[in-house]
Amino acid sequence: MMAAPKARFITLEGGEGAGKTTLARRLASAMAEAGLPVLRTREPGGAPGAEALRALMLHGQIGWDPVAEAMLMFAARREHVAKTIRPALEAGIWVVCDRFADSTLAYQCRGHGLDEAVWRKLADVALEGFEPDVTLVLDLPPEAGMARAMSRGLPDRFERLGQDFHTRVHAAFQAIAAANPQRCTLMDAAQGPDAVFAAAALALRDQLGLAL
Amino acid sequence: MMAAPKARFITLEGGEGAGKTTLARRLASAMAEAGLPVLRTREPGGAPGAEALRALMLHGQIGWDPVAEAMLMFAARREHVAKTIRPALEAGIWVVCDRFADSTLAYQCRGHGLDEAVWRKLADVALEGFEPDVTLVLDLPPEAGMARAMSRGLPDRFERLGQDFHTRVHAAFQAIAAANPQRCTLMDAAQGPDAVFAAAALALRDQLGLAL
Repeated sequence: MMAAPKARFITLEGGEGAGKTTLARRLASAMAEAGLPVLRTREPGGAPGAEALRALMLHGQIGWDPVAEAMLMFAARREHVAKTIRPALEAGIWVVCDRFADSTLAYQCRGHGLDEAVWRKLADVALEGFEPDVTLVLDLPPEAGMARAMSRGLPDRFERLGQDFHTRVHAAFQAIAAANPQRCTLMDAAQGPDAVFAAAALALRDQLGLAL
Repeated sequence: MMAAPKARFITLEGGEGAGKTTLARRLASAMAEAGLPVLRTREPGGAPGAEALRALMLHGQIGWDPVAEAMLMFAARREHVAKTIRPALEAGIWVVCDRFADSTLAYQCRGHGLDEAVWRKLADVALEGFEPDVTLVLDLPPEAGMARAMSRGLPDRFERLGQDFHTRVHAAFQAIAAANPQRCTLMDAAQGPDAVFAAAALALRDQLGLAL
Protein backbone atom coordinates (compact mmCIF):
# COMPACT_ATOMS: atom_id res chain seq x y z
CA MET A 1 0.00 0.00 0.00
CA MET A 2 1.30 3.44 -0.96
CA ALA A 3 1.74 6.05 1.74
CA ALA A 4 -0.80 8.86 1.44
CA PRO A 5 0.77 12.01 -0.07
CA LYS A 6 1.37 14.83 2.38
CA ALA A 7 -1.63 17.15 2.54
CA ARG A 8 -1.02 20.53 0.89
CA PHE A 9 -2.39 24.05 1.18
CA ILE A 10 -3.60 25.45 -2.19
CA THR A 11 -4.89 29.03 -2.59
CA LEU A 12 -6.79 30.65 -5.46
CA GLU A 13 -6.28 34.34 -6.10
CA GLY A 14 -7.49 36.94 -8.59
CA GLY A 15 -9.92 39.80 -9.10
CA GLU A 16 -13.72 39.82 -8.94
CA GLY A 17 -15.37 37.56 -11.50
CA ALA A 18 -12.18 35.67 -12.31
CA GLY A 19 -13.81 32.33 -11.51
CA LYS A 20 -12.12 31.42 -8.23
CA THR A 21 -15.23 29.96 -6.62
CA THR A 22 -16.08 27.78 -9.63
CA LEU A 23 -12.50 26.52 -9.84
CA ALA A 24 -12.31 25.84 -6.08
CA ARG A 25 -15.48 23.77 -6.28
CA ARG A 26 -14.23 21.74 -9.26
CA LEU A 27 -10.79 21.18 -7.77
CA ALA A 28 -12.17 20.03 -4.42
CA SER A 29 -14.57 17.71 -6.18
CA ALA A 30 -11.85 16.23 -8.42
CA MET A 31 -9.55 15.74 -5.43
CA ALA A 32 -12.30 13.97 -3.50
CA GLU A 33 -12.93 11.70 -6.52
CA ALA A 34 -9.21 10.95 -6.60
CA GLY A 35 -9.54 9.73 -3.01
CA LEU A 36 -7.96 12.71 -1.28
CA PRO A 37 -9.61 14.15 1.83
CA VAL A 38 -10.15 17.82 1.03
CA LEU A 39 -11.51 20.92 2.76
CA ARG A 40 -12.73 23.90 0.74
CA THR A 41 -12.68 27.22 2.56
CA ARG A 42 -12.49 30.99 1.83
CA GLU A 43 -11.38 34.32 3.26
CA PRO A 44 -12.17 36.41 5.08
CA GLY A 45 -13.67 33.74 7.33
CA GLY A 46 -13.25 30.00 7.68
CA ALA A 47 -13.25 29.80 11.51
CA PRO A 48 -15.78 31.11 14.06
CA GLY A 49 -13.71 34.15 15.12
CA ALA A 50 -12.78 34.89 11.51
CA GLU A 51 -16.45 34.72 10.45
CA ALA A 52 -17.37 37.16 13.23
CA LEU A 53 -14.70 39.54 11.94
CA ARG A 54 -15.89 39.02 8.34
CA ALA A 55 -19.36 40.15 9.41
CA LEU A 56 -17.89 43.25 11.11
CA MET A 57 -15.80 44.10 8.05
CA LEU A 58 -18.19 43.33 5.20
CA HIS A 59 -21.64 43.92 6.65
CA GLY A 60 -21.09 46.34 9.53
CA GLN A 61 -21.74 50.08 9.47
CA ILE A 62 -18.21 50.99 10.52
CA GLY A 63 -15.92 52.87 8.15
CA TRP A 64 -12.70 51.30 9.46
CA ASP A 65 -9.39 53.09 9.51
CA PRO A 66 -7.35 51.38 6.71
CA VAL A 67 -4.60 50.13 9.06
CA ALA A 68 -7.17 48.83 11.57
CA GLU A 69 -8.97 47.04 8.72
CA ALA A 70 -5.72 45.35 7.61
CA MET A 71 -5.14 44.29 11.23
CA LEU A 72 -8.60 42.73 11.33
CA MET A 73 -7.95 40.94 8.02
CA PHE A 74 -4.78 39.40 9.43
CA ALA A 75 -6.37 38.63 12.81
CA ALA A 76 -9.09 36.74 10.93
CA ARG A 77 -6.39 35.00 8.85
CA ARG A 78 -4.53 34.01 12.02
CA GLU A 79 -7.72 32.44 13.42
CA HIS A 80 -8.38 30.69 10.11
CA VAL A 81 -4.87 29.22 10.01
CA ALA A 82 -4.73 28.30 13.72
CA LYS A 83 -8.21 26.82 14.03
CA THR A 84 -8.96 25.41 10.58
CA ILE A 85 -6.13 25.25 8.03
CA ARG A 86 -3.24 23.92 10.14
CA PRO A 87 -5.35 21.34 12.01
CA ALA A 88 -6.72 20.08 8.66
CA LEU A 89 -3.25 19.76 7.11
CA GLU A 90 -1.96 17.99 10.23
CA ALA A 91 -4.86 15.55 9.97
CA GLY A 92 -3.89 14.78 6.35
CA ILE A 93 -6.67 16.87 4.80
CA TRP A 94 -5.84 18.95 1.74
CA VAL A 95 -7.01 22.56 1.88
CA VAL A 96 -8.30 24.60 -1.09
CA CYS A 97 -8.79 28.24 -0.08
CA ASP A 98 -10.50 31.05 -2.03
CA ARG A 99 -8.25 34.12 -1.33
CA PHE A 100 -5.42 34.44 1.23
CA ALA A 101 -2.69 36.97 2.10
CA ASP A 102 -2.03 37.89 -1.57
CA SER A 103 -5.53 39.37 -1.78
CA THR A 104 -4.80 41.76 1.10
CA LEU A 105 -1.63 42.90 -0.69
CA ALA A 106 -3.47 43.36 -4.01
CA TYR A 107 -6.61 45.05 -2.66
CA GLN A 108 -5.56 46.96 0.46
CA CYS A 109 -2.03 47.94 -0.63
CA ARG A 110 -1.95 48.17 -4.43
CA GLY A 111 -5.66 48.98 -4.72
CA HIS A 112 -6.32 51.27 -1.76
CA GLY A 113 -2.78 52.54 -1.10
CA LEU A 114 -2.02 50.95 2.29
CA ASP A 115 1.72 50.98 3.01
CA GLU A 116 3.22 47.62 2.00
CA ALA A 117 5.45 47.72 5.09
CA VAL A 118 2.27 47.40 7.18
CA TRP A 119 1.26 44.32 5.16
CA ARG A 120 4.70 42.75 5.67
CA LYS A 121 4.73 43.38 9.44
CA LEU A 122 1.21 42.00 9.88
CA ALA A 123 1.94 38.95 7.71
CA ASP A 124 5.05 38.37 9.80
CA VAL A 125 3.12 38.56 13.09
CA ALA A 126 0.07 36.60 11.95
CA LEU A 127 1.61 33.89 9.74
CA GLU A 128 5.19 33.49 11.05
CA GLY A 129 6.35 32.25 7.64
CA PHE A 130 3.41 29.96 6.96
CA GLU A 131 2.33 30.20 3.31
CA PRO A 132 0.48 28.25 0.62
CA ASP A 133 2.25 25.35 -1.10
CA VAL A 134 0.68 26.37 -4.40
CA THR A 135 -1.19 29.54 -5.44
CA LEU A 136 -3.21 29.59 -8.66
CA VAL A 137 -3.61 33.20 -9.80
CA LEU A 138 -6.59 33.65 -12.13
CA ASP A 139 -5.71 36.42 -14.51
CA LEU A 140 -8.64 38.35 -15.99
CA PRO A 141 -8.49 41.87 -17.49
CA PRO A 142 -10.73 44.29 -15.54
CA GLU A 143 -13.03 44.84 -18.56
CA ALA A 144 -13.82 41.11 -18.65
CA GLY A 145 -14.32 41.06 -14.86
CA MET A 146 -16.74 43.98 -15.20
CA ALA A 147 -18.69 42.17 -17.92
CA ARG A 148 -19.02 39.08 -15.70
CA ALA A 149 -20.09 41.22 -12.73
CA MET A 150 -22.77 42.82 -14.98
CA SER A 151 -24.02 39.42 -16.06
CA ARG A 152 -24.34 38.42 -12.38
CA GLY A 153 -26.34 41.57 -11.68
CA LEU A 154 -23.61 42.96 -9.39
CA PRO A 155 -22.24 45.91 -11.36
CA ASP A 156 -22.60 48.40 -8.47
CA ARG A 157 -19.91 46.96 -6.27
CA PHE A 158 -17.56 46.70 -9.23
CA GLU A 159 -18.25 50.22 -10.49
CA ARG A 160 -18.07 51.86 -7.07
CA LEU A 161 -14.35 51.17 -6.79
CA GLY A 162 -13.62 52.56 -10.25
CA GLN A 163 -11.75 51.36 -13.32
CA ASP A 164 -8.36 52.54 -12.05
CA PHE A 165 -8.75 50.53 -8.87
CA HIS A 166 -9.44 47.31 -10.76
CA THR A 167 -6.58 47.99 -13.14
CA ARG A 168 -4.21 48.34 -10.16
CA VAL A 169 -5.49 45.14 -8.53
CA HIS A 170 -5.13 43.25 -11.81
CA ALA A 171 -1.53 44.44 -12.20
CA ALA A 172 -0.89 43.58 -8.54
CA PHE A 173 -1.87 39.93 -8.99
CA GLN A 174 0.37 39.66 -12.07
CA ALA A 175 3.24 41.19 -10.09
CA ILE A 176 2.67 38.85 -7.13
CA ALA A 177 2.77 35.84 -9.47
CA ALA A 178 5.96 37.12 -11.12
CA ALA A 179 7.61 37.75 -7.74
CA ASN A 180 6.78 34.28 -6.40
CA PRO A 181 7.38 31.90 -9.33
CA GLN A 182 7.96 28.85 -7.10
CA ARG A 183 4.61 29.20 -5.39
CA CYS A 184 2.39 30.91 -7.98
CA THR A 185 1.04 29.91 -11.39
CA LEU A 186 -0.58 32.67 -13.43
CA MET A 187 -3.51 31.28 -15.41
CA ASP A 188 -5.58 32.81 -18.20
CA ALA A 189 -9.06 33.13 -16.68
CA ALA A 190 -10.66 34.47 -19.86
CA GLN A 191 -10.96 30.87 -21.08
CA GLY A 192 -14.07 28.88 -20.17
CA PRO A 193 -14.23 27.00 -16.86
CA ASP A 194 -13.24 23.65 -18.44
CA ALA A 195 -10.04 25.08 -19.85
CA VAL A 196 -9.27 26.84 -16.54
CA PHE A 197 -9.78 23.59 -14.65
CA ALA A 198 -7.53 21.70 -17.09
CA ALA A 199 -4.79 24.32 -16.66
CA ALA A 200 -5.13 24.15 -12.88
CA ALA A 201 -4.92 20.33 -12.91
CA LEU A 202 -1.77 20.60 -15.03
CA ALA A 203 -0.20 23.06 -12.60
CA LEU A 204 -0.98 20.82 -9.63
CA ARG A 205 0.48 17.81 -11.46
CA ASP A 206 3.68 19.71 -12.21
CA GLN A 207 4.06 21.22 -8.74
CA LEU A 208 2.66 18.55 -6.44
CA GLY A 209 2.58 15.38 -8.55
CA LEU A 210 -1.18 15.32 -8.20
CA ALA A 211 -3.15 13.32 -10.82
CA LEU A 212 -6.67 14.77 -11.11
CA MET B 1 -5.92 86.61 27.67
CA MET B 2 -3.63 83.58 28.11
CA ALA B 3 -3.38 81.05 25.31
CA ALA B 4 -5.07 77.78 26.20
CA PRO B 5 -2.50 75.11 27.16
CA LYS B 6 -1.96 72.38 24.55
CA ALA B 7 -4.33 69.46 25.13
CA ARG B 8 -2.58 66.35 26.45
CA PHE B 9 -3.19 62.61 26.46
CA ILE B 10 -3.11 61.08 29.96
CA THR B 11 -3.44 57.33 30.59
CA LEU B 12 -4.12 55.44 33.82
CA GLU B 13 -2.67 51.97 34.20
CA GLY B 14 -2.57 49.24 36.84
CA GLY B 15 -4.10 45.94 37.92
CA GLU B 16 -7.71 45.10 38.78
CA GLY B 17 -9.05 47.01 41.74
CA ALA B 18 -6.24 49.59 41.73
CA GLY B 19 -8.72 52.46 41.50
CA LYS B 20 -8.20 53.62 37.90
CA THR B 21 -11.88 54.31 37.23
CA THR B 22 -12.33 56.36 40.41
CA LEU B 23 -9.19 58.37 39.69
CA ALA B 24 -10.17 58.95 36.04
CA ARG B 25 -13.54 60.30 37.13
CA ARG B 26 -12.01 62.64 39.73
CA LEU B 27 -9.28 63.88 37.39
CA ALA B 28 -11.73 64.60 34.59
CA SER B 29 -14.01 66.39 36.98
CA ALA B 30 -11.18 68.50 38.46
CA MET B 31 -9.93 69.38 34.97
CA ALA B 32 -13.41 70.46 33.90
CA GLU B 33 -13.69 72.63 37.03
CA ALA B 34 -10.32 74.16 36.13
CA GLY B 35 -11.88 75.17 32.81
CA LEU B 36 -10.20 72.56 30.62
CA PRO B 37 -12.29 70.71 28.03
CA VAL B 38 -11.77 67.02 28.85
CA LEU B 39 -12.86 63.65 27.45
CA ARG B 40 -12.82 60.55 29.65
CA THR B 41 -12.52 57.26 27.77
CA ARG B 42 -11.35 53.67 28.31
CA GLU B 43 -9.96 50.60 26.56
CA PRO B 44 -10.73 48.33 24.95
CA GLY B 45 -13.32 50.55 23.25
CA GLY B 46 -13.84 54.27 22.92
CA ALA B 47 -14.90 54.35 19.25
CA PRO B 48 -17.68 52.44 17.43
CA GLY B 49 -15.37 49.91 15.75
CA ALA B 50 -13.36 49.48 18.96
CA GLU B 51 -16.56 48.89 20.97
CA ALA B 52 -17.65 46.23 18.46
CA LEU B 53 -14.28 44.52 18.93
CA ARG B 54 -14.56 44.88 22.72
CA ALA B 55 -17.85 43.00 22.59
CA LEU B 56 -16.27 40.23 20.47
CA MET B 57 -13.30 39.96 22.84
CA LEU B 58 -14.94 40.28 26.25
CA HIS B 59 -18.44 38.91 25.76
CA GLY B 60 -18.19 36.57 22.78
CA GLN B 61 -17.98 32.81 22.89
CA ILE B 62 -14.74 32.63 20.89
CA GLY B 63 -11.54 31.36 22.51
CA TRP B 64 -9.22 33.55 20.43
CA ASP B 65 -5.74 32.52 19.43
CA PRO B 66 -3.44 34.71 21.63
CA VAL B 67 -1.75 36.44 18.68
CA ALA B 68 -5.11 37.07 16.98
CA GLU B 69 -6.42 38.53 20.25
CA ALA B 70 -3.44 40.90 20.52
CA MET B 71 -4.09 41.95 16.91
CA LEU B 72 -7.71 42.73 17.79
CA MET B 73 -6.59 44.73 20.85
CA PHE B 74 -4.33 46.87 18.68
CA ALA B 75 -6.88 47.17 15.86
CA ALA B 76 -9.34 48.50 18.47
CA ARG B 77 -6.63 50.84 19.79
CA ARG B 78 -5.94 52.09 16.27
CA GLU B 79 -9.65 52.90 15.82
CA HIS B 80 -9.75 54.58 19.25
CA VAL B 81 -6.75 56.78 18.46
CA ALA B 82 -7.82 57.59 14.87
CA LYS B 83 -11.50 58.27 15.55
CA THR B 84 -11.57 59.59 19.12
CA ILE B 85 -8.26 60.44 20.82
CA ARG B 86 -6.41 62.30 18.05
CA PRO B 87 -9.43 64.30 16.88
CA ALA B 88 -10.10 65.33 20.50
CA LEU B 89 -6.50 66.45 21.09
CA GLU B 90 -6.51 68.34 17.78
CA ALA B 91 -9.69 70.12 18.89
CA GLY B 92 -7.96 71.19 22.13
CA ILE B 93 -9.73 68.59 24.30
CA TRP B 94 -7.69 66.83 26.98
CA VAL B 95 -8.05 63.05 27.05
CA VAL B 96 -7.99 60.87 30.19
CA CYS B 97 -7.95 57.18 29.24
CA ASP B 98 -8.42 54.14 31.49
CA ARG B 99 -5.85 51.62 30.14
CA PHE B 100 -3.81 51.83 26.92
CA ALA B 101 -0.93 49.92 25.26
CA ASP B 102 0.87 49.27 28.58
CA SER B 103 -2.03 47.07 29.69
CA THR B 104 -1.60 44.81 26.64
CA LEU B 105 2.10 44.45 27.49
CA ALA B 106 1.36 43.70 31.17
CA TYR B 107 -1.57 41.32 30.66
CA GLN B 108 -1.02 39.59 27.31
CA CYS B 109 2.79 39.43 27.39
CA ARG B 110 3.93 39.33 31.02
CA GLY B 111 0.68 37.75 32.29
CA HIS B 112 -0.21 35.28 29.53
CA GLY B 113 3.19 34.78 27.91
CA LEU B 114 2.66 36.40 24.50
CA ASP B 115 5.99 37.15 22.79
CA GLU B 116 6.93 40.79 23.45
CA ALA B 117 8.24 41.09 19.88
CA VAL B 118 4.61 40.64 18.73
CA TRP B 119 3.55 43.50 21.03
CA ARG B 120 6.30 45.75 19.66
CA LYS B 121 5.45 45.03 16.01
CA LEU B 122 1.73 45.60 16.57
CA ALA B 123 2.34 48.80 18.55
CA ASP B 124 4.58 49.98 15.73
CA VAL B 125 1.92 49.27 13.06
CA ALA B 126 -1.06 50.57 15.05
CA LEU B 127 0.41 53.60 16.84
CA GLU B 128 3.34 54.74 14.63
CA GLY B 129 5.08 56.29 17.64
CA PHE B 130 1.98 57.91 19.15
CA GLU B 131 2.00 57.56 22.94
CA PRO B 132 0.56 59.16 26.08
CA ASP B 133 2.06 62.41 27.34
CA VAL B 134 1.68 61.17 30.91
CA THR B 135 0.91 57.72 32.33
CA LEU B 136 -0.12 57.33 35.96
CA VAL B 137 0.60 53.76 37.07
CA LEU B 138 -1.48 52.75 40.10
CA ASP B 139 0.58 50.31 42.09
CA LEU B 140 -1.36 47.84 44.24
CA PRO B 141 -0.05 44.48 45.54
CA PRO B 142 -2.16 41.58 44.21
CA GLU B 143 -3.38 40.65 47.71
CA ALA B 144 -4.91 44.11 48.13
CA GLY B 145 -6.42 43.92 44.62
CA MET B 146 -7.96 40.57 45.52
CA ALA B 147 -9.44 42.01 48.73
CA ARG B 148 -11.02 44.88 46.75
CA ALA B 149 -12.38 42.47 44.12
CA MET B 150 -13.93 40.40 46.97
CA SER B 151 -15.54 43.49 48.43
CA ARG B 152 -17.05 44.28 45.02
CA GLY B 153 -18.44 40.75 44.78
CA LEU B 154 -16.19 39.90 41.83
CA PRO B 155 -13.74 37.37 43.27
CA ASP B 156 -14.29 34.77 40.51
CA ARG B 157 -12.69 36.69 37.73
CA PHE B 158 -9.75 37.56 39.93
CA GLU B 159 -9.28 34.02 41.22
CA ARG B 160 -9.69 32.34 37.84
CA LEU B 161 -6.43 33.80 36.58
CA GLY B 162 -4.50 32.73 39.66
CA GLN B 163 -2.16 34.39 42.14
CA ASP B 164 0.92 33.92 39.95
CA PHE B 165 -0.75 35.71 37.07
CA HIS B 166 -1.57 38.76 39.17
CA THR B 167 1.91 38.78 40.67
CA ARG B 168 3.41 38.85 37.14
CA VAL B 169 1.07 41.65 36.03
CA HIS B 170 1.89 43.68 39.14
CA ALA B 171 5.62 43.30 38.51
CA ALA B 172 5.06 44.17 34.84
CA PHE B 173 3.47 47.54 35.64
CA GLN B 174 6.33 48.37 38.00
CA ALA B 175 8.83 47.44 35.29
CA ILE B 176 6.99 49.51 32.66
CA ALA B 177 7.07 52.55 34.97
CA ALA B 178 10.78 52.03 35.67
CA ALA B 179 11.57 51.67 31.94
CA ASN B 180 9.67 54.85 30.98
CA PRO B 181 10.49 57.37 33.72
CA GLN B 182 9.79 60.42 31.50
CA ARG B 183 6.25 59.29 30.73
CA CYS B 184 5.24 57.22 33.77
CA THR B 185 4.68 58.03 37.44
CA LEU B 186 4.30 55.04 39.77
CA MET B 187 1.76 55.82 42.50
CA ASP B 188 0.91 53.96 45.71
CA ALA B 189 -2.70 52.87 45.18
CA ALA B 190 -3.06 51.30 48.62
CA GLN B 191 -3.80 54.80 49.99
CA GLY B 192 -7.38 56.03 49.99
CA PRO B 193 -8.83 57.74 46.90
CA ASP B 194 -8.21 61.27 48.26
CA ALA B 195 -4.51 60.61 48.72
CA VAL B 196 -4.29 58.96 45.29
CA PHE B 197 -5.98 61.95 43.68
CA ALA B 198 -3.63 64.35 45.47
CA ALA B 199 -0.61 62.38 44.27
CA ALA B 200 -1.97 62.37 40.71
CA ALA B 201 -2.58 66.12 40.79
CA LEU B 202 0.99 66.63 41.98
CA ALA B 203 2.36 64.48 39.15
CA LEU B 204 0.32 66.41 36.57
CA ARG B 205 1.53 69.71 38.02
CA ASP B 206 5.17 68.58 37.83
CA GLN B 207 4.94 67.08 34.36
CA LEU B 208 2.42 69.31 32.58
CA GLY B 209 2.22 72.45 34.72
CA LEU B 210 -1.42 71.68 35.41
CA ALA B 211 -3.01 73.29 38.49
CA LEU B 212 -5.93 71.13 39.68
